[in-house]
Amino acid sequence: MARKQGSHAGITGPKIRDAALRLFARHGYAAVSMRQIAGEVGVQAGALYLYTPDKQSLLFDLMTSHMEELLSAWDAADSGGTPCDRLEAFARFHIRYHLDRPDNIFIAYMELRNLEPENFAVVEDLRDAYESRLVEILDAGRADGSFDIPDTRLAAKAAISMLNGVTTWYREGGRLGRDQVEAIYWDMLRKSVSAMPETEALDR
Amino acid sequence: MARKQGSHAGITGPKIRDAALRLFARHGYAAVSMRQIAGEVGVQAGALYLYTPDKQSLLFDLMTSHMEELLSAWDAADSGGTPCDRLEAFARFHIRYHLDRPDNIFIAYMELRNLEPENFAVVEDLRDAYESRLVEILDAGRADGSFDIPDTRLAAKAAISMLNGVTTWYREGGRLGRDQVEAIYWDMLRKSVSAMPETEALDR
Repeated sequence: MARKQGSHAGITGPKIRDAALRLFARHGYAAVSMRQIAGEVGVQAGALYLYTPDKQSLLFDLMTSHMEELLSAWDAADSGGTPCDRLEAFARFHIRYHLDRPDNIFIAYMELRNLEPENFAVVEDLRDAYESRLVEILDAGRADGSFDIPDTRLAAKAAISMLNGVTTWYREGGRLGRDQVEAIYWDMLRKSVSAMPETEALDR
Repeated sequence: MARKQGSHAGITGPKIRDAALRLFARHGYAAVSMRQIAGEVGVQAGALYLYTPDKQSLLFDLMTSHMEELLSAWDAADSGGTPCDRLEAFARFHIRYHLDRPDNIFIAYMELRNLEPENFAVVEDLRDAYESRLVEILDAGRADGSFDIPDTRLAAKAAISMLNGVTTWYREGGRLGRDQVEAIYWDMLRKSVSAMPETEALDR
């Protein structure tokens, strides 16, 4: 993992990471060179190596810090209440957090295949930890009878995929505002896990 | 768009497309050269140009033919019935179709940004056409009162994102078989769009 070395790196580090994130998202990790990243920051390629040993470390750093920040942000936002309250908080948090960081979510999904195996394992653990936060809420709702979910691990995966999708199509200034989109996704998610009597029309 | 020229291309065309699909999915479009594709097929780079004028045409060809085949396959699978029957058929079809083609779905999502604008517009129209098939089912279910959906276009996007997610984690021989996964996703989707009375536990 990249280690900052001295005060020089303290200044350019965030800029290097921003530039790498932007370039990886636009062109893909494999197509971007350390030289290009240096160019985007406005430093010599040599200066980059004061901050990070190589491009793989930079990718690993971006992906782990994204996941760690996401976990901390959710832990701070989870204010308790009923499982349904917490599920709503999770859904709204997840949409808002990722709409502000579309490059991160794009890379988190797309560049997994470019992580070296030991780095992949670390990122996978962080992803599991986030998913487990949601599984725990779903388990609690199943235990108190408010949710009806055959498999909470699968339901968590399905819910996260659905919520992630917002980042692929949402544009500011479009037909619907963020609040409306959040409300509609939350409504679908709420129903998808709820203990619902089958109606005649839906019964097969 | 790529045009086949003579019988030579008739033989190598599918091989070239398979090789390009595999390499684009593994390394990303930007990182793959025509020379690499030729190497994977086992022909000289020059032979590739008998089949396709350039790499962009190859990507465009892969993405449009994937979408056209998907549309035809769904139109053949859609056997009518109630909106709920058709929604179930759509969900099961979508999961099965894409589990058999993980590289296609990965590229369809990831490489949109690498299409030239006029090619992007064509692919976008095909994606809209597929989404519209689902919107039409949701509209029919809303009209007959079996579904309760505030915005059918948004619900279609949410449903497709959720179903697509299966391809990112499903592995043959894992904890759950395809039929179980299909059944669980369908159960969630069915409830997510259903006309459901709010229960006390869910009421806020």
